[in-house]
Amino acid sequence: MSSGNSFHAVKTEEELSLYIPQEGLVQLRNPHINGMDEDVLYHIALSNKSNNLTEMFQDVKFVCFGGSPTRMHKFAEYLVEELQIKIPAGLKVTNIAHGSDRYVLYKVGPVISVSHGMGIPSLSIIFHEILKLIHHAGCSDVIFFRIGTSGGLGLEPGSVVITEESVDGLLRPYMELSTLGMILQHPSKLDQDVARDLVSLANSEEDGYVTIIGKTMCTLDFYEGQARLDGAFCDYNEADKMAYLSRVHKRGIRNIEMESLCFAAYCYRAGIRGAVVCVTLLDRLKGDQITTPHDIMEEWQSRPQKLVAAYIKRKLNI
Amino acid sequence: MSSGNSFHAVKTEEELSLYIPQEGLVQLRNPHINGMDEDVLYHIALSNKSNNLTEMFQDVKFVCFGGSPTRMHKFAEYLVEELQIKIPAGLKVTNIAHGSDRYVLYKVGPVISVSHGMGIPSLSIIFHEILKLIHHAGCSDVIFFRIGTSGGLGLEPGSVVITEESVDGLLRPYMELSTLGMILQHPSKLDQDVARDLVSLANSEEDGYVTIIGKTMCTLDFYEGQARLDGAFCDYNEADKMAYLSRVHKRGIRNIEMESLCFAAYCYRAGIRGAVVCVTLLDRLKGDQITTPHDIMEEWQSRPQKLVAAYIKRKLNI
Repeated sequence: MSSGNSFHAVKTEEELSLYIPQEGLVQLRNPHINGMDEDVLYHIALSNKSNNLTEMFQDVKFVCFGGSPTRMHKFAEYLVEELQIKIPAGLKVTNIAHGSDRYVLYKVGPVISVSHGMGIPSLSIIFHEILKLIHHAGCSDVIFFRIGTSGGLGLEPGSVVITEESVDGLLRPYMELSTLGMILQHPSKLDQDVARDLVSLANSEEDGYVTIIGKTMCTLDFYEGQARLDGAFCDYNEADKMAYLSRVHKRGIRNIEMESLCFAAYCYRAGIRGAVVCVTLLDRLKGDQITTPHDIMEEWQSRPQKLVAAYIKRKLNI
Repeated sequence: MSSGNSFHAVKTEEELSLYIPQEGLVQLRNPHINGMDEDVLYHIALSNKSNNLTEMFQDVKFVCFGGSPTRMHKFAEYLVEELQIKIPAGLKVTNIAHGSDRYVLYKVGPVISVSHGMGIPSLSIIFHEILKLIHHAGCSDVIFFRIGTSGGLGLEPGSVVITEESVDGLLRPYMELSTLGMILQHPSKLDQDVARDLVSLANSEEDGYVTIIGKTMCTLDFYEGQARLDGAFCDYNEADKMAYLSRVHKRGIRNIEMESLCFAAYCYRAGIRGAVVCVTLLDRLKGDQITTPHDIMEEWQSRPQKLVAAYIKRKLNI
């Protein structure tokens, strides 16, 4: 199930039987939820008692997560056009999670567009709450996407990487989670079919940029964790950095970001099909700083959105 | 330097000599920064070339970090009153980092009020960039605070905990950071003098709530990482949860949150005096869900702000 240092990989029988892709209704791997009087989704200011989640969300088939709240708002607006959603006069797309300032949450037809902030812990919170949300709403056959930004390795900046496998900074293909005094390892497997379908929708010649499937490294830190020389702390030199980045590049890592390990591990645990699509903002084999002009960066950041929108349109026969 | 599992605790001579509290100018533990043409602080959309950081920030003596952008805005507004800052007619406090939507950054007299999002990776990014910011600005003798929210253990909700020591979910007093293929351990020591000065400013009888010094547990996950039964995933039961929480409570842990380990470790590495002050929103020995009405929660969240503002006022002789 997981390779590498597996001294903590002891699993219960229940755990071993859990990782089966689900068809139909979204189930939770938590027997306690259905016995609860009320479930407050605290960080998005919704609850299954105060809100009619079924009425609000039952038709959801796709959830798109991304780091930046502004970008996820733009994606929602973009989907209105792409999916030809008719919005009645006098209405507009609005942040459903406005009762909290932790995340933003939009719904456009069968798609949720939600921000996840930066890093695994921030993604973890919203993943738990979105999974509970779509469970309470009675959703079925939902596909999850993370659309984000990343540092590339050996790629022209602006290239798009669809994650084949996510690994941590030591190249371990699982997420470690401290749980009740044990360090549990959750394999970070992603659905290969969704990845292949996504890459088949890209056309490097027409697009003017490359879209590939590759391995993604996910770190807990942006500076030292990604071998940058430009953080407030740094106790290694240029040669150390390049040796490390070249070594991981040779092992198939094509980009580095900060959420895919958790996203993949939780999709796998939940039996949800998921894919990670990130644009690369720079080539880390050539530098550390992100200095590209704002307007070019804006266009780059729309590339994963376009690809995922194209996938959704094909699924919906639009 | 650190206790517990120390199989990765091998330190270079340089590292061992670094952890000395600094007097005077804020120094960086990174020899590369001063040789750089430009340093783009990407996530707050500032740079030492495009902005006159010295002019903007040289008088800063206190940096207050907190998770929520709205709360850090309110704190800035609160400081205007408390520090009797005279704002010229026609002006108002505004977000200096408005060129990015990742964090908000306010400056009120000698105080920076900045959001850090949720979890260690998100805090890590802004800590690096703030430390570089105040270094470029030529600041000296700066004190850092984290003012936040947490789950309490055995405390009346609304109580305030000043962190004596931060530990991870396995009670280890250090932050582990994957760096160039090694897992390095950074001790999470906090300045005990600042903690004592803070607690001396509180008066439980007058305040109507308790303010104590206690140990803080810092986790990478809000649900399973904090032994909650109400996440999307849960493979333990109520008895397992209570056994774990009671055990950590007996060992002096008074609250649980998601950033203090990194905050403490980075303050210590940087030679910056730092303190963590969090209000508890619930007693985790009694439940998992946060259901307190919004207005009461608002008042609770202002308690760490009041204490830190009182500390700043005393330091500034206001």
